[in-house]
Amino acid sequence: MSRGSDAGDLVRRLLGGERRALSRAISEVENESATGLEALRLLYPHTGRAQSIGITGSAGAGKSTLTAVLAKAFRAEGRTVAVIAVDPSSPFSHGALLGDRIRMQDLTNDPGTFIRSMATRGSAGGLAATAADVAAVFDAAGRDIVIIETVGAGQDEVKIASVAQTTLVLNTPGMGDDIQAIKAGIIEIADVLVVNKADLPGADAVEAQLQALLSLAPAGDWQIPVVKVSATKSNGIQELLDAIATHRAHLQASKPADSARYGQARRQILAAVHAELERRLRIGELDSQLDSLAAGVAERTTDPRSAAVELLQRINGQWVKKGNASEHDVNRGTC
Amino acid sequence: MSRGSDAGDLVRRLLGGERRALSRAISEVENESATGLEALRLLYPHTGRAQSIGITGSAGAGKSTLTAVLAKAFRAEGRTVAVIAVDPSSPFSHGALLGDRIRMQDLTNDPGTFIRSMATRGSAGGLAATAADVAAVFDAAGRDIVIIETVGAGQDEVKIASVAQTTLVLNTPGMGDDIQAIKAGIIEIADVLVVNKADLPGADAVEAQLQALLSLAPAGDWQIPVVKVSATKSNGIQELLDAIATHRAHLQASKPADSARYGQARRQILAAVHAELERRLRIGELDSQLDSLAAGVAERTTDPRSAAVELLQRINGQWVKKGNASEHDVNRGTC
Repeated sequence: MSRGSDAGDLVRRLLGGERRALSRAISEVENESATGLEALRLLYPHTGRAQSIGITGSAGAGKSTLTAVLAKAFRAEGRTVAVIAVDPSSPFSHGALLGDRIRMQDLTNDPGTFIRSMATRGSAGGLAATAADVAAVFDAAGRDIVIIETVGAGQDEVKIASVAQTTLVLNTPGMGDDIQAIKAGIIEIADVLVVNKADLPGADAVEAQLQALLSLAPAGDWQIPVVKVSATKSNGIQELLDAIATHRAHLQASKPADSARYGQARRQILAAVHAELERRLRIGELDSQLDSLAAGVAERTTDPRSAAVELLQRINGQWVKKGNASEHDVNRGTC
Repeated sequence: MSRGSDAGDLVRRLLGGERRALSRAISEVENESATGLEALRLLYPHTGRAQSIGITGSAGAGKSTLTAVLAKAFRAEGRTVAVIAVDPSSPFSHGALLGDRIRMQDLTNDPGTFIRSMATRGSAGGLAATAADVAAVFDAAGRDIVIIETVGAGQDEVKIASVAQTTLVLNTPGMGDDIQAIKAGIIEIADVLVVNKADLPGADAVEAQLQALLSLAPAGDWQIPVVKVSATKSNGIQELLDAIATHRAHLQASKPADSARYGQARRQILAAVHAELERRLRIGELDSQLDSLAAGVAERTTDPRSAAVELLQRINGQWVKKGNASEHDVNRGTC
């Protein structure tokens, strides 16, 4: 069976509600295989119905617990849920740690909840695109809610959560440094600021700090709310659900030209540009060209910036050579 | 004065030891201006003498203190030092926080030490390239040692430190989660593992964990050492200096074809590729093209991956149009 019809068959079965096709489509998309990229193109017109929510914050902020609580709340409303948990890779095996899966155990027996742990192979830049792609697969498969949870607090890691429509940034009192999220520069991507573990001392101080910070921000058309919750005690969850719903309504009411309306699409495209570049750099031919350029830099016959420009030109050359086919997917599948 | 001769004059004065030319060159390079990129090309043949050391680890691991202690140790040996401290940006002003500068105050009165704080505008990917560029400027200006200190613990942030020849990854006992560095996946980039705050309880356990991890790693030609230090008490510093020197000797003894020898150059080129791509995406024309593609994705007439491929092609098209000049720098300056 050719690659094109393989992807076509996969998408047909996915749209028909076959759970095995969903699993397989996710794997193909995650591996950025030719079938996966073709499937993505075919299923994309069927997306746009799901509501996606990104959850991020420092290690220990309670992201997984909040994810589980929100998932259960949506399930109680009768909506189907998918969770994409981006786990850190262990340094040598590149396998995913089990922590988050274990914490989600009580959800896993519910057929209305689909949990997918993504191993963090490769860079955070590439992962953001892949998480968005997997979210699109869930969307096409008819999931009502897609939650993307990112472990990690680096500036690029949090971009993984920001490919969602609404991004929650978690803060907690008593982490030693109350402004961790601020220092990591991750508040910039927040649509809703959450003070988790609000039953702990210091929660009000964290809330006040966040409000003070927001008062310094340039006035936008969306007023970022600060919501206090206690995920373990399920306090404040309704307020958080309301804030998420309000943000979704804000996006839908935005005019087509507004940055809010196309913001998510812009972020997804930029993530895909990085993923595409990394994908091409993994290819054998380019890798050996990179080797010879590295030798030039090491011997000072060229500099890294000029070498980068040359490498980009070679990617382009390869592109032009193989890019005569009119379909992007053919191109993507072979180069 | 034309851009080319401006850069030429700047590089001449820099090589002549003019401190003001050094400051200006750093600023131009940091801003990725046409003059900066041209200056970088001109000064690169004069680099290769300095020893560069990257220092990274979680927040609170004591990176700045260790940086200051190492800087003073090198100064005591009569070597000149440059420190590039990559500070987190404050979320709204995008200015650098003052913390690290303050901690370095006792070094700043020494003319043999040059400290440069880099604001983290833009992405971590772009920053890695810029930090490497600034290190090259210091190298050409005759600094013996260049220390690149990265604040932040994300997978892409730590790449900033890994553009150095020798990368130290700091771990500390008593951070609540002893394997933070492991979870963040940052041990992969370590040439030397440092257990800082070795006077605190739990240091031996951290050391044992790291050794256990290393025993699982595929055997390479470089045996990663674990060195216990107490930066505040200046304990273990000589052992750390020895480990750094041993790694440098290892790199120099490696055969030209060895990955160790060209590893740094490869990392620098890949960082520069990302920086170059981001630089081009900031350009007005491409930005409006991104807008129309985002509209297409939002309306489901295309998908993010196909839009990314299209955007890359447009970058290429622009490239071909403006890339007829034979000098890369002209190209870089205008597109």
